[in-house]
Amino acid sequence: MEAEIYSKLLLTFGLVLLAAAIGGKIARFFKQPAVIGELLAGMIISPFALGGFINDPVILNFAVINGHFVEGGIAIPEFAPMQIIAEIAVIALLFIAGLETDVRAFIRNGVTGGLVAVGGVVLPLLFGYVAAMYFFPDIGTVGWLFVGAVLTATSIGITVRILMDMGRFNSRESIIILVAAVVDDIIGLVILSVVVSVAGSGEVNGLGIAVTALIGFAVWLALLAIGIFGHEFISKYILAPFKRSKTMPILALILTVLISYMVTLVDLHPVVGAYAAGLLFASTKEKEEIIEGARPVMLFLAPFFFAYLGMQVDLGSVWQVIVPVLVLLALAVIGKIIGCYIPARLVGRLSHNGGMIVGVGMVPRGEVGLIVASAGLLAGAISRDIFGIAVVVSILTVFFVPTMLKPLFARDAVLPAKPAKK
Amino acid sequence: MEAEIYSKLLLTFGLVLLAAAIGGKIARFFKQPAVIGELLAGMIISPFALGGFINDPVILNFAVINGHFVEGGIAIPEFAPMQIIAEIAVIALLFIAGLETDVRAFIRNGVTGGLVAVGGVVLPLLFGYVAAMYFFPDIGTVGWLFVGAVLTATSIGITVRILMDMGRFNSRESIIILVAAVVDDIIGLVILSVVVSVAGSGEVNGLGIAVTALIGFAVWLALLAIGIFGHEFISKYILAPFKRSKTMPILALILTVLISYMVTLVDLHPVVGAYAAGLLFASTKEKEEIIEGARPVMLFLAPFFFAYLGMQVDLGSVWQVIVPVLVLLALAVIGKIIGCYIPARLVGRLSHNGGMIVGVGMVPRGEVGLIVASAGLLAGAISRDIFGIAVVVSILTVFFVPTMLKPLFARDAVLPAKPAKK
Repeated sequence: MEAEIYSKLLLTFGLVLLAAAIGGKIARFFKQPAVIGELLAGMIISPFALGGFINDPVILNFAVINGHFVEGGIAIPEFAPMQIIAEIAVIALLFIAGLETDVRAFIRNGVTGGLVAVGGVVLPLLFGYVAAMYFFPDIGTVGWLFVGAVLTATSIGITVRILMDMGRFNSRESIIILVAAVVDDIIGLVILSVVVSVAGSGEVNGLGIAVTALIGFAVWLALLAIGIFGHEFISKYILAPFKRSKTMPILALILTVLISYMVTLVDLHPVVGAYAAGLLFASTKEKEEIIEGARPVMLFLAPFFFAYLGMQVDLGSVWQVIVPVLVLLALAVIGKIIGCYIPARLVGRLSHNGGMIVGVGMVPRGEVGLIVASAGLLAGAISRDIFGIAVVVSILTVFFVPTMLKPLFARDAVLPAKPAKK
Repeated sequence: MEAEIYSKLLLTFGLVLLAAAIGGKIARFFKQPAVIGELLAGMIISPFALGGFINDPVILNFAVINGHFVEGGIAIPEFAPMQIIAEIAVIALLFIAGLETDVRAFIRNGVTGGLVAVGGVVLPLLFGYVAAMYFFPDIGTVGWLFVGAVLTATSIGITVRILMDMGRFNSRESIIILVAAVVDDIIGLVILSVVVSVAGSGEVNGLGIAVTALIGFAVWLALLAIGIFGHEFISKYILAPFKRSKTMPILALILTVLISYMVTLVDLHPVVGAYAAGLLFASTKEKEEIIEGARPVMLFLAPFFFAYLGMQVDLGSVWQVIVPVLVLLALAVIGKIIGCYIPARLVGRLSHNGGMIVGVGMVPRGEVGLIVASAGLLAGAISRDIFGIAVVVSILTVFFVPTMLKPLFARDAVLPAKPAKK
């Protein structure tokens, strides 16, 4: 019966949320960011672990493996309701992140952030390409490029959450990381366009790629400009009519969902749109009221996203490919840190410690790595095995961040020149 | 590309929310409950109206007609992500309703509420059966029974929302309506079991039906009892550990989702579980804190549910069957009002005005009517045409309620014996 499927989806939604809540709680007990506990909880209940024992096609079994993708790279036209909920969840998270960002500081650090993004792309792409040549000689240039591209991505969602959890969200390092993560997404989009077009036609369309990049930047800058120059208009004509009925924060959330969709039309990731929407409302005088009303929605949904991400990891099969996983993981971490550290110090004039914070903050690949890997699988450029490796590496990068960031921030707090914590 | 489908689902989610927000806003401007505007907005953007012009299988086109059910009553195994979001939305609404209910008053009015429910079932069932015999002589006893059963349902979600919108949520009449709506769901479940088993085997299994009813009541009473006798335990061992991290309201919401699933195992509607979960937490001393944290989630999602409901109505095809629609609609309204009014006055000793409030409050069928009609379609007992009529009648009943309740409550407020409004 149809109704039974919906009940099972409801159960799955509830179980993932519950696992995330418990995982987050345990992580906090051990003085770790909640996001780590949520990811681990997801790994434990994943269809590759506990979920597999339930032996039901719906309950805790909606991950990528179950018919969503099939061997050979042909997608089955089946929607995963949990995927769309996860997407709404990460949109709510990035929206709050945008709202809580200091917009002036964001713009002031634009150049440094942009160069950090470029540095953080070049090295991992090179490292990934070479390592893939060594481990998977059969897959050819396009496959190697995909593996490299997976390593270039930066997950803004995870870094944001960790910085929030640590209460260091508006430090200068954090702002640079946020700018860089946004620019990184646009660069990632360009790289993805290149590899997909190479995989398809074997040729690179230089003009087309330049146009893609330009449109991505233009849309993003336009959203930022609307917020800065149009915030009085937004307050007066869009938000004010919804103020009395207390649905104003909800309206802002709704517009964020629509903006997140709109940026996908120029192939940006929806979370980049969500972050831009947050920045847009951050300039309005209703900012605090919006945060207050929208934060509970984010607190409810965001843990779902991280647990859902953890559910994609097949821990059992990792052991069979442990050597490439570890090597790629090391290259992903080292490449990103060095690539970001250099521009952060040279251009941003950060201290050694500050440069390290930026480098480490850029390490997590998370969902963005998954997206690139999925595109590679769909294009037939990488096999199911390599896809699995890419997924595991993407998610394992996340675990490094809080462990490494903590001592760096602690040392940072001792220095006298820094502005006081809120 | 897969990613495109998710983007389109995101757009749909955003558009439905936006339409609901604007519809609610317009309704409030005309001093009507927001829910009416949300339903109308849903009708306007439905795939049968504006949504149809978009000509895309995903954007605004996820309603029942699009492959979700096919001719002949065989369900296509395709999940509608919007359906599961709508379900989570109405769960959040009923959870808040439970939390805001005066538990003692709820229990004190148990007998009256129960008898109101019975009265509100008997007359509409009889009226629906007879009218179906007249209009659709071909479909036979089982079909007539299904049409009658559609008319017996009561949608607790809609009544709750209208009472909330009117600020009359904890009046005695409202409490009786809530009790009756819960009992009604259990009676509805019994009737549904009867008609489905008759449709399947042609026989009625009396013992099986009695067991179904008993289990339904037992689960419900057990949840109520856990709240009343176990609230200190719940506060101390379940809620307290999540208090410091401010995730306690979220945890309560998560447990509500799980309880909503659990009641579906005994074939109750998930919203009945959500309401019971709300009552369960209403006895704890953390009640206010939970309401504060969970209400924004409800405010964000609930309008989605009502707009989604409106999207099921095919206004265009209503004109072709306007006579049976109007007759069934009149019988649904009159049958419910008389059937509920009599026990409310005789047993509950309410005034004429109070009895009318209870009767009118029980009128909306909404989603519950849709569920019964869908079951009839799936069982092959009613045709697609009659299904369409049942859907339209179910949803049109909703529009009567605020229009009729308003003058009744206004007259009520003048009487001196009533307790003062909050």
